[in-house]
Amino acid sequence: MAAIWLVACSNEPNNNHFPKVILTAKAVKAIRAEKDDLPLLKHSIENLKTKVEVEMLKGIDVPVPKDPAGGYTHKRHKQNYIAMQGAGTLWQITGEARYANYVRDMLLQYAKLYPTLKEHPIKASYAPGRLFWQQLNEAVWLVYVSQAYDCISGILTPDQKETIETQLLLPYADFLSIENPKVFNRVHNHGVWAAAAVGMTGFALENEELINRAFNGVETGPKEAVGAGFLVQLTQLFSPDGYYTEGPYYQRYAMLPYLLFAQAIENNRPEMKIFQYRDGVLKKAALATLQLTSTDGRFFPFNDALKSMSYMSTSLVHAVDMVYALDESQKELLSVAKEQGEVIICESGLKVARAIANNEAVPFKWNSLEFTDGPEGKQGAVGILRSNTGKTSQTVTMKYASQGMGHGHFDRLTISYYDGDAEILQDYGAARYVNVKYKHGGRYLPENKTWARQTIAHNTLVVDKGSQSEGNVKVASSHHSEPWVFDASNEMVKVMSAKENNAYKGLKMHRTIALLNLPQVSGDAIVLDLYRVESDAKHTYHLPYYYLGQMMHTTVGYQPSTSSLQAVGEKDGYQHLWHTGDGKMDAGTNRFVWLKNERFYTLSTASQNLDKMLFARIGANDPEFNLRNDPAIILQREKAGNTLFAATIEAHGYKHPVTELVTGLNGNVESIKELINNADYTVVEIGFSNKTSVVFAMCNNDNNRSKQHRLLANKEAYEWNGVYHLFKK
Amino acid sequence: MAAIWLVACSNEPNNNHFPKVILTAKAVKAIRAEKDDLPLLKHSIENLKTKVEVEMLKGIDVPVPKDPAGGYTHKRHKQNYIAMQGAGTLWQITGEARYANYVRDMLLQYAKLYPTLKEHPIKASYAPGRLFWQQLNEAVWLVYVSQAYDCISGILTPDQKETIETQLLLPYADFLSIENPKVFNRVHNHGVWAAAAVGMTGFALENEELINRAFNGVETGPKEAVGAGFLVQLTQLFSPDGYYTEGPYYQRYAMLPYLLFAQAIENNRPEMKIFQYRDGVLKKAALATLQLTSTDGRFFPFNDALKSMSYMSTSLVHAVDMVYALDESQKELLSVAKEQGEVIICESGLKVARAIANNEAVPFKWNSLEFTDGPEGKQGAVGILRSNTGKTSQTVTMKYASQGMGHGHFDRLTISYYDGDAEILQDYGAARYVNVKYKHGGRYLPENKTWARQTIAHNTLVVDKGSQSEGNVKVASSHHSEPWVFDASNEMVKVMSAKENNAYKGLKMHRTIALLNLPQVSGDAIVLDLYRVESDAKHTYHLPYYYLGQMMHTTVGYQPSTSSLQAVGEKDGYQHLWHTGDGKMDAGTNRFVWLKNERFYTLSTASQNLDKMLFARIGANDPEFNLRNDPAIILQREKAGNTLFAATIEAHGYKHPVTELVTGLNGNVESIKELINNADYTVVEIGFSNKTSVVFAMCNNDNNRSKQHRLLANKEAYEWNGVYHLFKK
Repeated sequence: MAAIWLVACSNEPNNNHFPKVILTAKAVKAIRAEKDDLPLLKHSIENLKTKVEVEMLKGIDVPVPKDPAGGYTHKRHKQNYIAMQGAGTLWQITGEARYANYVRDMLLQYAKLYPTLKEHPIKASYAPGRLFWQQLNEAVWLVYVSQAYDCISGILTPDQKETIETQLLLPYADFLSIENPKVFNRVHNHGVWAAAAVGMTGFALENEELINRAFNGVETGPKEAVGAGFLVQLTQLFSPDGYYTEGPYYQRYAMLPYLLFAQAIENNRPEMKIFQYRDGVLKKAALATLQLTSTDGRFFPFNDALKSMSYMSTSLVHAVDMVYALDESQKELLSVAKEQGEVIICESGLKVARAIANNEAVPFKWNSLEFTDGPEGKQGAVGILRSNTGKTSQTVTMKYASQGMGHGHFDRLTISYYDGDAEILQDYGAARYVNVKYKHGGRYLPENKTWARQTIAHNTLVVDKGSQSEGNVKVASSHHSEPWVFDASNEMVKVMSAKENNAYKGLKMHRTIALLNLPQVSGDAIVLDLYRVESDAKHTYHLPYYYLGQMMHTTVGYQPSTSSLQAVGEKDGYQHLWHTGDGKMDAGTNRFVWLKNERFYTLSTASQNLDKMLFARIGANDPEFNLRNDPAIILQREKAGNTLFAATIEAHGYKHPVTELVTGLNGNVESIKELINNADYTVVEIGFSNKTSVVFAMCNNDNNRSKQHRLLANKEAYEWNGVYHLFKK
Repeated sequence: MAAIWLVACSNEPNNNHFPKVILTAKAVKAIRAEKDDLPLLKHSIENLKTKVEVEMLKGIDVPVPKDPAGGYTHKRHKQNYIAMQGAGTLWQITGEARYANYVRDMLLQYAKLYPTLKEHPIKASYAPGRLFWQQLNEAVWLVYVSQAYDCISGILTPDQKETIETQLLLPYADFLSIENPKVFNRVHNHGVWAAAAVGMTGFALENEELINRAFNGVETGPKEAVGAGFLVQLTQLFSPDGYYTEGPYYQRYAMLPYLLFAQAIENNRPEMKIFQYRDGVLKKAALATLQLTSTDGRFFPFNDALKSMSYMSTSLVHAVDMVYALDESQKELLSVAKEQGEVIICESGLKVARAIANNEAVPFKWNSLEFTDGPEGKQGAVGILRSNTGKTSQTVTMKYASQGMGHGHFDRLTISYYDGDAEILQDYGAARYVNVKYKHGGRYLPENKTWARQTIAHNTLVVDKGSQSEGNVKVASSHHSEPWVFDASNEMVKVMSAKENNAYKGLKMHRTIALLNLPQVSGDAIVLDLYRVESDAKHTYHLPYYYLGQMMHTTVGYQPSTSSLQAVGEKDGYQHLWHTGDGKMDAGTNRFVWLKNERFYTLSTASQNLDKMLFARIGANDPEFNLRNDPAIILQREKAGNTLFAATIEAHGYKHPVTELVTGLNGNVESIKELINNADYTVVEIGFSNKTSVVFAMCNNDNNRSKQHRLLANKEAYEWNGVYHLFKK
């Protein structure tokens, strides 16, 4: 095989037709010239060759559409567009005619098949396609095929060109736009893919009409108020900080058509300065996805999200390369590109490969950041605090955003906690095994709705065993949380704080997370978690912590469920939790210690009389064994109105796997105590085992950062400027 | 700090007293000369310096013994011996007097304390020590301290020498030997440590009496029949293949005193050729521990074993270095030493560091091997089959050995299965968190006895819901399994097979594992599992498979336990299993598919009418949450006498974490069918989805490898030579 490549590569390309959509004449010439000297580019081309050759060896198959996602015809048409885009690129880079011929022959077969097709036989989508069961896949096909056509159209006879354009590409683009205006104009990732597909085809065919549709949408009676088309989509779906409202798992997917179409616009309408649009929102979005990861590059699993998805995905390879090409000062991106191990084969990838070959990469830094949500950045936010920016930092995320559309979870003010790469307090993510036929064909499982989206499935407060917004997406989408303060400027105390006043009627919730890095206590950062509730009526509150690992110890005297298990409740997710024990907590500091990956973690809570700690495990009422059977503890406070849940979470010690030596069995926190909690102020004291202590004070009624505060707590006076302060004692 | 080292290192040692026990004059001179040129040796010395300096900075503390294991005085005395041995070594290597002075001063303090000591106040051991709660630790102290004394005795005044020897070392050695003859003479790792301690002290002090005790044991009225002393221990505890009867977790620990004392003997009594004793059993033992690992170096967790323990442990650093020094042709050991990242500071370590610096390392190969058990290799064996010797091989282990003394599990004929490094069918190991005070002070947990040792906790047959040998160690120790055949010579079909006729009265069990690597089916190796039972009486059989991962699919129509869970049984470990569902299997092939680490695994069973599949999860009756809540399926056959459980286990496919593409969702095995099963032969047919098939035939009544067999099965004639054969169709 290697020998064949060598021969093939030695042929200089003999075509004088250069592409223009994503690849350009300039890029093609440079790649041809430099590819053997740039290891990452060379490797990426070799990889692409292997993939394309495997497909070419199978011969061309353009089957009549029949199967749903995961079925043969679905997969075949998907592999066909990937193979065509790859072969088109290889034709440009290597000049080997067999690549171009492969694309030509396959397109001619599609041109025969396409006019015969009606709606796809699998009727499962609100927007059925022709080749695929849904128009989303239909659009993706054209995003790839428009590039393939762009690469190889120079070899076509006028007849072939005519056939492919009039029998396939133009009607295909019409189907996606004027024949399905509602999907096309939809401000939603399906609409973005469609606009990109039609617009990129417009550039490939130099068809102004198509480009115009992509930019402005199509007529569909009275337009939606926000307008339609790509520029509107660029305005509506990302916040000014580049956060995509569905969360990073979907952001990764949604970003690809944006980036590709933007690159096509940049190449063909440079005067539009598309990458500068909305203060460079596409660049911000790309950088946001990179930051919305744990330090192994996996996306925080906000909302419906699969946890294995990471910045290794193709979409992020595009994002990293394109953003670097836009701004070559971002040398941190190069180390992500190195980890990705590939570049896209176009000018952006070339620039990255050059810089890496030139040893310009610097380590990627994960930062403490807040990303606003909503088109104007006014629909809440997500916050990330990191104890430092190295690989062994602790990270806490908090979600105080909008609902995130249909894939949103009812989890306002939920947190997750990582120690280095490891999830310690988990966000469950989605209940789904994508593409695993055994599990409902790879679709979202029933438990995604009954469990994963429900409030009790998250590390946030549940009131009277019911989900936020009664588990109703429409209701939840009508409001959002309110950021209170985010300040990561002080290494010793980083704070994020937000309020949620609509998730439960008549109830105001306010959560503050402080990440404390105190010189007075050795060891890792300490998370301070203050969850405040205001309510005139009395309720039962549940605050779960989905710890991962093995329970080691608790100061709570509990009754385990030993000989039989019952579900904790009947609905809103409670039906999926086994009650594995419970215990009455004493007023004062209670502790729960667990072990994960050879480290210890301690939750210390400021409890009140009659508080309970419930022990639970996921897995009840799960007839198909779809759920992961992970544990939780749930703090329970009954008949409570206004109240405060105050807790610290610490990572400490190490259990050596081989020497079996154990260090740091105990955390530093000895006590946590509420000093004041009312509508105006929350003040808590944390006592450490070395007999020092700190007092954390938060103003609840004014988040003016220059306001002066003075109050008495426990007979001591506390004075500070700003929303919060940490006092050392 | 670095600067200090440089200055220190530049001082040439000015002592002319060289050690002789482990370090030798020759080694010291060579290490001084070469250390800066051998990175691994240099690094090991630097590491040792850091550790010793940390202790020296704390100052000397020789507290009056008070605490149990894990308590301050216990840990302090332990760190003291480690620090002394290290400082003694550093004195020899660097010539910095402060190291020698540190050892001298600490020894003088011990010489003051020791004569005042009586039995340790914690009365928890059958053999209490003085510094420590048990004599095991007491002996370990002297193994280290004898080396420290050996290194620094040259700096002592005659008075100091007299004080340390007569007030500390001699009475200490007497205590371990003549004052506690039963422990000293015991054929058990406690006895080995004691012999090594006394013998090494003998060499350090040139005291023939002590050396003699170590070699021959001490008088204790009528000696045990096997004799006593180190040579007897060398005869009794390892099999001729170097397998230690308690299993690899304890072998690692037990090997250290053997190796150290043997090295001391080699250095001081070279004429004994101790390393050639019993055909080089110590070398075999060291090599055996390396092979008794999964491909990440973690020991197979036979019997009471913690799963994180690996060949990275200090004991294996000694083993690797010493065996390499004995036989410098074993270049594979060098790659293990590289992974260990350190060498011991003596001639052996020097040789390893030299060879690594010289780039002589070759990759370590994991092989398919059988290790006999028992002093003469006649008490059964453990078998390991590997589909190849690379990092991505599949591995199956089977245990058909003796009981393994008090740490043994009632798990004859149990298997475990690894895919690459990953445990797929697990051996639970021990229920213990070593050194974690929270969990019963780090001791074995109650569930170790009630769960981990019981038969149902293992992948082996349980009869009438009772453990093998009624869970009685004495009964179980009186018999052992019988190897039937082990043959890994054919890459296409590797076989291990063994019988167990005593675990259950009136019942004969015979399990055969074949690892099939067939050219006719693509993909990974297929495990064929044939578990045959002969019994005149009818019984209920349970055959569990402790799969790790998430259930994906089964062909069995089952009833899940959705709203409440009950324990599966009341005793013999069943009380710790939650019954999470069950289903009647149809006669014929039934399938169970799970997902672990993005790969799929399928168990296909040849079931009979009325067979059931039980679904279970560990964790019932576990009031302290000590157990891991892992799942299992259990094949149940009721009212059965003679019978065969035939199954295949396959690793297949891949679920890509980022592209989310799923390949190889189905395994290759379509059917598995029993053709013949009687006292003479077992014949099964495996049908593949590509419509080919194989027939595996095993002779049950004669394991003569040259015997000819002929029989009819399903109207076809099968003829072969030897115990088993695989027929392709």
